[in-house]
Parts: sequence; structure tokens; C-alpha cells
Amino acid sequence: MPVPTIDAPPGLEGVVVAETAIGDVRGDEGFYHYRGHPAPRLAESRAFEDVWHLLHVGDLPTRAEGDGFRRHVGSMRRLPADLVPLLRAAAVAGGDLPALVWLRSLVSLTAQHAGLTPWLGRDAEAVADEALHLVAAMPTLVGLGWRTRNGLAELDPDPGRGVAADLLAMLHGTEPHPIAVRALERYLVLTIDHGFNASTLAARVLTSTGADLGSGMVAAMGALSGPLHGGAPVHALRMLEAIGSPERAWPWIEGSLDRGERLMGFGHRVYRTEDPRSVVLRSVAEEFTDPIVALAIEVEGVALAALQRRHPQRPLRTNVEYYAGVVLHLCGIPSELFPAVFAVSRSVGWAAHMVEQASANRLIRPASRYVGTPRVGT
Amino acid sequence: MPVPTIDAPPGLEGVVVAETAIGDVRGDEGFYHYRGHPAPRLAESRAFEDVWHLLHVGDLPTRAEGDGFRRHVGSMRRLPADLVPLLRAAAVAGGDLPALVWLRSLVSLTAQHAGLTPWLGRDAEAVADEALHLVAAMPTLVGLGWRTRNGLAELDPDPGRGVAADLLAMLHGTEPHPIAVRALERYLVLTIDHGFNASTLAARVLTSTGADLGSGMVAAMGALSGPLHGGAPVHALRMLEAIGSPERAWPWIEGSLDRGERLMGFGHRVYRTEDPRSVVLRSVAEEFTDPIVALAIEVEGVALAALQRRHPQRPLRTNVEYYAGVVLHLCGIPSELFPAVFAVSRSVGWAAHMVEQASANRLIRPASRYVGTPRVGT
Repeated sequence: MPVPTIDAPPGLEGVVVAETAIGDVRGDEGFYHYRGHPAPRLAESRAFEDVWHLLHVGDLPTRAEGDGFRRHVGSMRRLPADLVPLLRAAAVAGGDLPALVWLRSLVSLTAQHAGLTPWLGRDAEAVADEALHLVAAMPTLVGLGWRTRNGLAELDPDPGRGVAADLLAMLHGTEPHPIAVRALERYLVLTIDHGFNASTLAARVLTSTGADLGSGMVAAMGALSGPLHGGAPVHALRMLEAIGSPERAWPWIEGSLDRGERLMGFGHRVYRTEDPRSVVLRSVAEEFTDPIVALAIEVEGVALAALQRRHPQRPLRTNVEYYAGVVLHLCGIPSELFPAVFAVSRSVGWAAHMVEQASANRLIRPASRYVGTPRVGT
Repeated sequence: MPVPTIDAPPGLEGVVVAETAIGDVRGDEGFYHYRGHPAPRLAESRAFEDVWHLLHVGDLPTRAEGDGFRRHVGSMRRLPADLVPLLRAAAVAGGDLPALVWLRSLVSLTAQHAGLTPWLGRDAEAVADEALHLVAAMPTLVGLGWRTRNGLAELDPDPGRGVAADLLAMLHGTEPHPIAVRALERYLVLTIDHGFNASTLAARVLTSTGADLGSGMVAAMGALSGPLHGGAPVHALRMLEAIGSPERAWPWIEGSLDRGERLMGFGHRVYRTEDPRSVVLRSVAEEFTDPIVALAIEVEGVALAALQRRHPQRPLRTNVEYYAGVVLHLCGIPSELFPAVFAVSRSVGWAAHMVEQASANRLIRPASRYVGTPRVGT
């Protein structure tokens, strides 16, 4: 009796792989939320650690709980001293590379050094704590890796700071500007989770085998490094730099579209409306006094008008990447680190999905259809 | 307009995620093949490198092609000298750990050092060559990691040897016995590919994002480290050691089943017949003159009879793990390395799946259903 198979659309589009209580994206409404709380509102009103608490514990903390959680995860940001030399050596292996490649190795070594073993059959609370440690180490690993690769000594985390402030401090070695801290913090909150994308799927597939959460985190990070998933806010920023000044926006955009090129930072697979993340990030960018903000707004207006005129039936809208690149740039993040900073916030989502998968596990083991050479014989 | 969703069975069981020309498992027939060639026949008649060629190139090599391919991949087994100190340091990080945890870090560092970047948009032949390099390094990484962790200097690969012989030589530092070489070689051929399991899915999900093949390999290895996927041939071996002698088989098995325990090495999710890999591995084991072989055969007979009597409607059959543990043990492989040796052969399958995914790519991006707290407000 052959095993029954179900044909799924290519790429599993629309196929429900799991139930989740972590979040949801409603593309037709231009709306997404974390555990029922609209994410843009959380970004405006809450600290990154509060939203991390929401994902990890299940609800928003009280003021006292939030302070305690911030100190708790802040203390986890410090890396074991005997691991640091190995991380330094690993960070510089391999020359010029995308940041997520060396960050993948640093995360793998950190999980290994912490002795993370398969979660299956172990205490659920201990496993959830491992998830917290992995996420907490992310900004420190980004700072250590980037500074080491640039010939600079890494800087210790400060457990008294929030993630956004400490990440900036560990990159730059100076007291971060409050506007940059709140800008980065809102970016981080906005990018914690966003449906069942490839990295989240990878984290859950790995977890479904019973593997240690470090393996899941490393796999998810690898998926995020894929150009078709993690995208590239840097491309939109590069486009703005290429345009250079507002008065050049019109001829540049028209010329680009005439040549059949894709405009960077427009269009999204899920959203039929404007990307709700873009709305928040535009207002974040407007808090900075930098010529690139006026340029970005002018270019956006010209681009949207051109796209509307050329595709009146379904014009492309601004997506998250357009203003994300501008905001991260204004925060002083080097553009090669944009994907690594994305991983800092998204790791909160991956961790929550891994813990959720472990709490009601079933091995994710689909099927395939053989379409190659017929059987040569038995 | 909401995006239509399709409900899939839990764990995506029976859901066809991709078409493949690499291989197929027909559980009801007790049959599996690689590109149309029955795998057990390949194990009996072909060198591991010939079957690797079949997976990588698409067909079995002629004698001359096979010799050339063996030399080609043999030369890729050597690790870059400037990477070795880092690998040594990484291998010993974290104390007592499952082998696949430290191997995951070694593979990540090797891919990073080789400068592997997203495959998307790059020359297909160059990408396929990267896959070959990653697979070729596996036995060397296993040997280096294991010897370093045991305080021994690693041993250089010998490009003139086949993978099975060289892996044994790099572990033991002595000329491997021809019976052990051919035994290990057949084990390796039998375990190259086996349907769309969790590690293969992980490799393809990662590749579907355009990520570098190193990220895919690391993710797949993490999935294999999960107890629900990679299994544990060591458990069946431990059971035989606990039974100790053939005359103790009957009371031990009966006592174990009376206590409601699961017998290790029996039962499989896909096969309704005996696992075809088990058939070959039993005959491989019988080539060794070691008391454990007679013990294994006696225990198998007793166990099958007991399972048949207790579950006459659907008795469990011997699976791959039962004799795999015995064979690897007889080859002199330390039991903690069984999963790492499994990864050596399965990496051939992962590489073929990654190359196939890249050749006709579509992002694997399923959906989820939100079942948590209702929306708190917009």
C-alpha cells in the first residue's frame, strides 16, 4: 500500500506547517502583531526588552518585571572569558565575507562552548533559558566580530544598558546618542518576527528533530543570509546614494524603470498595502536632521508616482527595506552589518518559535516526488 | 482578500515539498534507490566515490572516470594549513559534547574560511564545486576533531585512498584492515540518501533562500544531530552489550518488552518490510569473526519472534540502526563518532539536494495559523 501523498504548491506557499501563538501577518490589512499586540504600536511605546519578554514569557511585563528582565538578559550578554580568544580567531577567518557568514560560526561556537545538547527529554525551563542566553549573546557577538575584523579590541557589554544602546556602544566605543538608541530600538522591535518565513521554518525544522537550540539558531541565521530571504536594506541605501540629491530623483527613477530595472525597497510578497514597518521607520528617520532623510522622502514620492503610473492595476508600495537602510545608516551602523543587526532582533523570534515547537513537538518530515531516471532494476 | 491557506497533516507527513531526481524510498516495497540504481546493489558492487559521482554528476562513472573522480575529491580532502589551528581550538571548545555539535562548528568554519558566499547569481559549476569541497572535507574534519579532542595530533589525509580507508586511517593512525574498509564503505554507500527527511529538508530550505552551501550543510548537520532524526545506532549496540551473551537474549528481551520498553533497532516510519539497509549490513557484519556478530544474530531472531508474537497484526522489523552500530563498532569506530560518520556519507546526499534545489529554485516559504491571544487592538 503506497503512502498517500499530497501535492503542495511550489515553495509550500500557503501551506500551514504549524499553529503558533507567537504572531501573525495579515498582508491584506497591512497589519502584523506579536501575541495579539500590534507590532508598530509596541515599537512606539515599548522597550525592546519588554517586547522580548512578551515573546519569551507570553505577556508584556509590568514596570518592575521589565526592569528585572532587562537586568537578567543584560547580564547574559557577557561572553565567557575563555571563549573570547576562539571567537576572535573565528571572526577573522576567511577574509572579506558577508557578516552573517562569520556570525554563523560565532553563534555555533558560543552554543557549543555553552554545552548545548539536544533539548529532547530535558527540562523545558532549562531549554527556554538556553534560548534566552543565545539571544542575549547576539549583540556582543556582532560587536566582537566587527571590531576584531577591523583590528579593534572588542568592548565589554554593559548589563545596565538596553540591547539597542549596548549594541551601539559595543560597535563604536562611545556613548550612543539617545536619538540613535530609540531609533535602533524601534527598528529592532519591528523586526522580531514576521510570519513563517524561511529562517523561522528552518529553526522549527531543526527543533522538531530534538536538536539543540544552538543548531536551530545557526540554521536560521544561515537562512537569513540568503538574498531571497534576508533581503538587503543596503541596496535601497545604495540607490539613494547613487541618486545623490532630490532634484536628480525624477530622471534617475524614470531612467531606471525605462531600462527595466527593479527599484530597491518597493514591493512585498505578503503586503498589498504599504508595509506597516515602513510607516514607522519613515517617522523614525524624520527625527534625524540629515540630508539623506529629505532625499529618501523625495525619492519615495517620485518612485511611488512612477510605479503607480506604470502599473495602475497593482502599483508597488514601499517595503521595510527602504527606510530600514536609512535608519540603520543614521544610527551609525556600518552597512555591512545591516543583516547582522537584523539577526539580533529576529533571534528573539527564532527563540520563541523553537521553544514553542519543543512544547508541542512533531517531527517535520515531508515527502518528495521522484522525477528522475526510472528504476534501473532491482 | 485573504491569502488562501492549505491545511497540511502535522509534520507535513506525505506533503510533497519538491520534485527530485536524486532518489526515492518505496517503503511498501522495502526498496530505495539513487538516481534509479538500487542502493543495496550499489553498496555491494561499487566504491563510495563511484556512488558519490552518481549523485554529483548524475551517472555512474566508467573505470577511468571513477579513478579520476576519486583522485579529484581525494585531493580536496586536505584542509588549508592556516585553518587547522583554528579548527583544533574549535574542536575542544565546550567539553563533553555530542560529536555533531563540534562537527557543526568545524564545518561552519571550513565553509567560512573557503569564502563561501550566497550561491544566487553565481556560476552553477562553481557552486557545484563548492559542494564537492564541503563533502570532501568531512572525513578530515571528523578525524581532526576526534584526535584533537583526545589529545592526539591530527593525521594528514592520503588522496590516494578512498574515503572509507582514509577516514579509518585518519582516526587510528594505522593501515586499515581491508575487511574494515569494505565494511565501512558499504555502510557509507547505504546511508548517502534516504528520502526527504528533516536534514535534507533543512538543506533545501536553506538553499532556497540563496544562502551559501556552507550554511545549508551546517543546518543539515544540526538536524541530523536531533535524536528524532539521526537516531542512534549506539543504542542498539549498547543493548547488545547489556545482553552480553546469546543465552541471555531470551530473558532479556522478554523482560524488556514486559516492562513496556522499546527495543532499539526495530521499527521504521517508512518501511513496512525489513529495512533493505539492514539486510546488507547483516551480511557485512557476518564477514567479521567477532562474538558480537553471533550475539547480534541471536538477539535479532529472539526479538523478531517476540515482536511477532506480541504484535501479530504489524510486527516491527529490523531497521538500519541495528546492524549499523555493530558494523561501525567492528570497523573500530568509537561509538561517540557514529553520528559523525553518518554525516560523512549523508553529506553527499545533502550536497546533491542543494545543487538540485539551486538548479530550479523557488523560495520555500510556508504559512502558519495563529492560535494565540486574539488581537488586542489596532
